[in-house]
Amino acid sequence: MENFIFQNPTKLIFGKGMIANLAKEIPQDKRVLVTFGGGSVKTNGVYEQVKTALQGFEVVEFWGIESNPSVETLQKAIALGKENKVDFLLAVGGGSVIDGTKLIAAGILYDGDAWDLVLKGQAIDTLPLAAVLTLPATGSEMNAGAVISRKETVEKFAFFSKNPVFSILDPSTTFTLPKYQVACGIADTYIHVMEQYMTTPNQSKLMDRWAEGILQTLVEIAPSITKDTENYALMSEFMLSATMGLNGFIAMGVRQDWATHMIGHELTALHGITHGGTLVIVMPGLLRTLKTKKTAKLLQYGERVWGITAGSDEERADQAIEKTESFFRSLGLATRLGEVGVGDETIVEIERRFNKRKVGFGEDGDITGTVSRQILENCK
Amino acid sequence: MENFIFQNPTKLIFGKGMIANLAKEIPQDKRVLVTFGGGSVKTNGVYEQVKTALQGFEVVEFWGIESNPSVETLQKAIALGKENKVDFLLAVGGGSVIDGTKLIAAGILYDGDAWDLVLKGQAIDTLPLAAVLTLPATGSEMNAGAVISRKETVEKFAFFSKNPVFSILDPSTTFTLPKYQVACGIADTYIHVMEQYMTTPNQSKLMDRWAEGILQTLVEIAPSITKDTENYALMSEFMLSATMGLNGFIAMGVRQDWATHMIGHELTALHGITHGGTLVIVMPGLLRTLKTKKTAKLLQYGERVWGITAGSDEERADQAIEKTESFFRSLGLATRLGEVGVGDETIVEIERRFNKRKVGFGEDGDITGTVSRQILENCK
Repeated sequence: MENFIFQNPTKLIFGKGMIANLAKEIPQDKRVLVTFGGGSVKTNGVYEQVKTALQGFEVVEFWGIESNPSVETLQKAIALGKENKVDFLLAVGGGSVIDGTKLIAAGILYDGDAWDLVLKGQAIDTLPLAAVLTLPATGSEMNAGAVISRKETVEKFAFFSKNPVFSILDPSTTFTLPKYQVACGIADTYIHVMEQYMTTPNQSKLMDRWAEGILQTLVEIAPSITKDTENYALMSEFMLSATMGLNGFIAMGVRQDWATHMIGHELTALHGITHGGTLVIVMPGLLRTLKTKKTAKLLQYGERVWGITAGSDEERADQAIEKTESFFRSLGLATRLGEVGVGDETIVEIERRFNKRKVGFGEDGDITGTVSRQILENCK
Repeated sequence: MENFIFQNPTKLIFGKGMIANLAKEIPQDKRVLVTFGGGSVKTNGVYEQVKTALQGFEVVEFWGIESNPSVETLQKAIALGKENKVDFLLAVGGGSVIDGTKLIAAGILYDGDAWDLVLKGQAIDTLPLAAVLTLPATGSEMNAGAVISRKETVEKFAFFSKNPVFSILDPSTTFTLPKYQVACGIADTYIHVMEQYMTTPNQSKLMDRWAEGILQTLVEIAPSITKDTENYALMSEFMLSATMGLNGFIAMGVRQDWATHMIGHELTALHGITHGGTLVIVMPGLLRTLKTKKTAKLLQYGERVWGITAGSDEERADQAIEKTESFFRSLGLATRLGEVGVGDETIVEIERRFNKRKVGFGEDGDITGTVSRQILENCK
């Protein structure tokens, strides 16, 4: 096991009716900027619950944080926050709203252009923020990360800030989600876990078990959940799995990959494909490309998550990759570049971008522009 | 899944050489009371590392916190802390030292007898405390709980305070532990997990998987670790498992039992038996007594942790209980009351105590004095 430092101070408030806790969790004297995405929270009752809970607080609302939040939109929220001298932020929505609000919380305390903070990769100082989660997927409700896009330059980068002070997760808020979003949320969670897990076996036996535990849970609930999105028990498992999938709990003392995400971000930036939708295409291609290097872990994964025990090492590794891709397809998601209209020119552009940035992703830092091109070729 | 609120702010600093981080984790202006158990930290190098790291701090040392720390000893430390106006505590040792230091941290800010706080069950206010862990077992390094004894009245009660601000876990500090202590630490961890797990299945599929993940890890490492206590990788798994076994990470949204602990505490109070040593006796007896009620979870546990798939439900439940007891015996621990010299008079005394306190332990609050007597009869 590698040396590590772990801390996750976010207070997780989980369950039916818990949005009412907002009133006691936000300090009484705060001026709150509440941020939203589109209008879905107005039709599913979440907006009403939040508004009721915040009676008595000074509240400013900002609407319209889009999927893959853009710095252009967030700059408007930063201006609104500065103007109203807010000193607490409450994100109400999915990962995009929470991610965007992390940049707003830092941007309000920063004099220059908020894009500087994204390029720097790290917030200097930040206002406290909290979240009411309505779409399980990114884990942003219990981590310090965010991913911000810039329309002007068609770029998308990760940025680190502070954890939410608290996050409220009521699984019943997810009942009205479109099935496609549930499918993408499950896929996103699955791949977050794989990024932290699919390296080499037994760096930590315990972390391996916990990562596998999330994957096993997702595999178990997926066939029902995409048909029965108003099942509280199932949505609870999904919501808890998504949060636990990217809050550091399965990352202690182990190396991580994240190349799938880095390549996926480019596909979103260039083609506007949903985050989860890019990941389910890239990961099987990455595993096909790096099969030899990752064989030992693929065999463990295949056996423990998919029950694959027969065949040669190579056959079992292949089966594990096939099972992974089939799982994504069973969610109704496309898993090949051709299906989403991405062709060779994009592959060339991503190689060019990575080579220019001289990147080296993956647990060994060896996923260069050239290797990324091979991976994308294996996603055709 | 039940509604829950989870928060665990402890910073976990894990790995070889990490004790040196003390210097930057404790605020510079603090007057530190450092607490110890016996002298083992002087022979294994931990004391030297702590002393070196704390150069430049104002430090007061308190030695002699015993196993099952007594309020009588802790009162002396509280007096020393008050006298020296300390405002930060550092516990260096195992669960007993950390538990005891939690009471010291509360007692220094309390004017009356510290035993009042134990009876109240909850600290009112407390100084910040941190820990350097040398004996994995109790999880005290990353939770708010403590168990305190009182020699005068032969009592032992749980008490809740605050989490350590940070805890440093260097697996190499455990290399010199006696094998019996390693065995008890593994058993203690195993039973902490069972207390949070062995109720009913699928309250949370994910929490079930994570609890099973710790149990599987312990079962996997136990045969080697008790022979090879200087194996860094194995001790890392043990140390991380012990911490994760009782820090709330596997307790989200699920009911818990804890009757084994409540009965075990009485055996320690009355006979001075090591904590882990009492648990491995009581738990198999509890499972034999409550087999019918817990059948569904016993079957899941038997299959996932022990690979038991053949036989009727009752046969598989019996096998799961037998496997559990055999596991404890494989660690070299006694699993029957007769082996540790406990007879009928103790069983009667525990029934009397519980009936007098009108307790109801277990996930349904139905483990009364009378049921506890049945459980202890099944431990003979």
